[in-house]
Amino acid sequence: MAKQAKRTSRDIRTANRYEVLRQIIAASPTSRQELAAATGLSLATVATLVGELLDLGMLTEVGFEDSAGGRPRGLVAVNASGGALIGVDIAETYVRVELFDLALNVLARAAEDMRPGESRPEQVVGHVAAAVGSVVAQAGVEGARVLGVGVSVPGQVDRDTGISEYAPNWDWHDVPLLDLLAEHIAYPLHLDNPLRACAVAELWFGAARGRGDAVVVNLGTGVGAGLALGGGLHRGVSNSAGEWGHTTLVLDGRPCHCGNHGCVETYVGAPGIMRNLRESSPQSPLLHPDDQTATIDALSRGVAAGDPVALQVVRDTARYLGASIADLINLLNPEVVVLSSWVAAALGEPLLREVREAVARHALRRPLAATEIVLSPIPTDPVCLGAATFALEGALNAVGQKPVGGRAVPRRTAL
Amino acid sequence: MAKQAKRTSRDIRTANRYEVLRQIIAASPTSRQELAAATGLSLATVATLVGELLDLGMLTEVGFEDSAGGRPRGLVAVNASGGALIGVDIAETYVRVELFDLALNVLARAAEDMRPGESRPEQVVGHVAAAVGSVVAQAGVEGARVLGVGVSVPGQVDRDTGISEYAPNWDWHDVPLLDLLAEHIAYPLHLDNPLRACAVAELWFGAARGRGDAVVVNLGTGVGAGLALGGGLHRGVSNSAGEWGHTTLVLDGRPCHCGNHGCVETYVGAPGIMRNLRESSPQSPLLHPDDQTATIDALSRGVAAGDPVALQVVRDTARYLGASIADLINLLNPEVVVLSSWVAAALGEPLLREVREAVARHALRRPLAATEIVLSPIPTDPVCLGAATFALEGALNAVGQKPVGGRAVPRRTAL
Ligand SMILES: [Zn+2]
Ligand SMILES: [Zn+2]
Repeated sequence: MAKQAKRTSRDIRTANRYEVLRQIIAASPTSRQELAAATGLSLATVATLVGELLDLGMLTEVGFEDSAGGRPRGLVAVNASGGALIGVDIAETYVRVELFDLALNVLARAAEDMRPGESRPEQVVGHVAAAVGSVVAQAGVEGARVLGVGVSVPGQVDRDTGISEYAPNWDWHDVPLLDLLAEHIAYPLHLDNPLRACAVAELWFGAARGRGDAVVVNLGTGVGAGLALGGGLHRGVSNSAGEWGHTTLVLDGRPCHCGNHGCVETYVGAPGIMRNLRESSPQSPLLHPDDQTATIDALSRGVAAGDPVALQVVRDTARYLGASIADLINLLNPEVVVLSSWVAAALGEPLLREVREAVARHALRRPLAATEIVLSPIPTDPVCLGAATFALEGALNAVGQKPVGGRAVPRRTAL
Repeated sequence: MAKQAKRTSRDIRTANRYEVLRQIIAASPTSRQELAAATGLSLATVATLVGELLDLGMLTEVGFEDSAGGRPRGLVAVNASGGALIGVDIAETYVRVELFDLALNVLARAAEDMRPGESRPEQVVGHVAAAVGSVVAQAGVEGARVLGVGVSVPGQVDRDTGISEYAPNWDWHDVPLLDLLAEHIAYPLHLDNPLRACAVAELWFGAARGRGDAVVVNLGTGVGAGLALGGGLHRGVSNSAGEWGHTTLVLDGRPCHCGNHGCVETYVGAPGIMRNLRESSPQSPLLHPDDQTATIDALSRGVAAGDPVALQVVRDTARYLGASIADLINLLNPEVVVLSSWVAAALGEPLLREVREAVARHALRRPLAATEIVLSPIPTDPVCLGAATFALEGALNAVGQKPVGGRAVPRRTAL
């Protein structure tokens, strides 16, 4: 019920453990003294947390550095081979799985295409199980070293029960996805959605790392905003925060599949961008009526070639996007806004330039001056990386918990 | 820079101290055991925090209760006379000051009207100083017992330096308000704005108390949303979060004084509501062209009397407000949305009913089901109460800090 009433010293230790490991992953090797300076935690707290991570085999001692006039300082680094993490990106037309070492380097990849209509939970679960088996075999890691599997599925999810409450693409309702996966996969499983996967990836490894408040804008078929506030994900009271795609930009505007009109998503998601193109140039050869990816790619190439129609569509889209991002800046006063997901990656710098100009026309001067707008710097699939990060967080949450049924970590932990 | 990097064990102790005192103010007398159960903190932590508050004279021991089969439990209560807090609400046309005891009962009130044009900082400061002197004299408290004065001024403020960065009503820029006030007032001073004052009042004493995430919607001349996330105010990276009044509801809609078009404020702030009335019934006798308060009061009386024009204006306003509040619900997934400030108080239940219906038409099903929309239950001026709460928080922040210049608390602390 009351979230702050649940914030125990255990939660605080877990948050501090995240923060210390995040710093070490970002800059290895490092000393406890440097970690204390970077995190604001006391040296004693850092030493305790580093000790825990060393005991878990997640870190390793890598020697000493001289400190001016003092005793040499012990250096620690991520023990990359101390465990493996798996990230699963379930999307409408594919399942993508990546296996990472503890420094979050990709060791193996697998993908399965899903044919249209192949949308029953058991079919999807079969593809996930096959791809997970494939990456473990490819990487040649022992099963015991897999610390966990993070699974991202679109829509509303209940992380605690592992249920996909509502997946709009397939009209899934209350599918017990983790229970189904657990019949095939013996590692600890963690469920969340792509919006939050992208946000946590930026928080640990991308443009939100070390920033106070960040908004990760996801531009794909669907649209959303992952909120990284005060160094952690803001999830809301029922884990559905971030549905920025369904906030009203144009009262009584374009109809949206959510039942509302004028939602942000209808102007800046891939189908919305296709509509922007259709409205400005109905006959444009850039338009591939039944293929979002082909259309966005054509727009991207068109912009690079200076095609005036493509430039105009990016400008129109940026006008909508700029007003909507200005809303996030005025409401939340973030330090950074990150443009993520495949539409942002495809349209890249030209979109970013136009968006920055449009935001400047709409946002209030002071919060605007405090905010940076950037493209996601993450070079790989941010959803797989974020899903693997949920598995890493799950392993860190389990530190100090009693083994369950003889396993070092419970099969499923609340993230 | 990095907010999470600044979250030290000291910050955590301060947040826990807030939480424990909040619980005690809500339900006195109470035992350490009950406090531990209500806050999720360990009994040892609660005992330490209660001990600190007892030492400060903020609490008092009030006897014992029997516990089934165990030792009798000591009971503590707020020591109402253990200190006084002053809240200052600086508005466009008045200065209102209230003096509270530590249980946040009002002991004395003073108000000063400000004539149009009386907007120089020294003039405003003169009114504040007179009213503060008046409440201290009325209440007959010794100066030494005044723990602090919280000051709310509209617009952007820098809490750390006590500067009013921008006050749109008077076109103030970078006025060193607390330094000017300190020439007349010897108590510790704390500066913030009405948006956050109302939010903190709800968080400590109103509808947001004990709730995980709450949004306090301020409906006055200006419009904003105070964000109480995870049990604390979300301030953003430069203390300007909450400018929901300047998020776009109607792209290219009504012009706003911020330079944007179609801002929420232009549809649901008092001047926006006057425009809604003018557009639907230009000749209505409800309209008092130069008097917002008179117009809103006339609408309130009209609704009570069943006047169809008044009912229509409330419905039109609720349509805009409902779509905009649905945006907050979809984006933030709060547990409660509180309607606060004078326009909400004047239009009351009839507005609330229409807003709830309009929100239900626009919000996503799941976050909607998780959210309650209520009128503020705070019976007094929430801005004075919230400003006094900032003074209380300031006193709690100063616990354990070294005295500065012989004073028990520094003249001005970062809130
Ligand atoms: Zn929608
Ligand atoms: Zn505006």
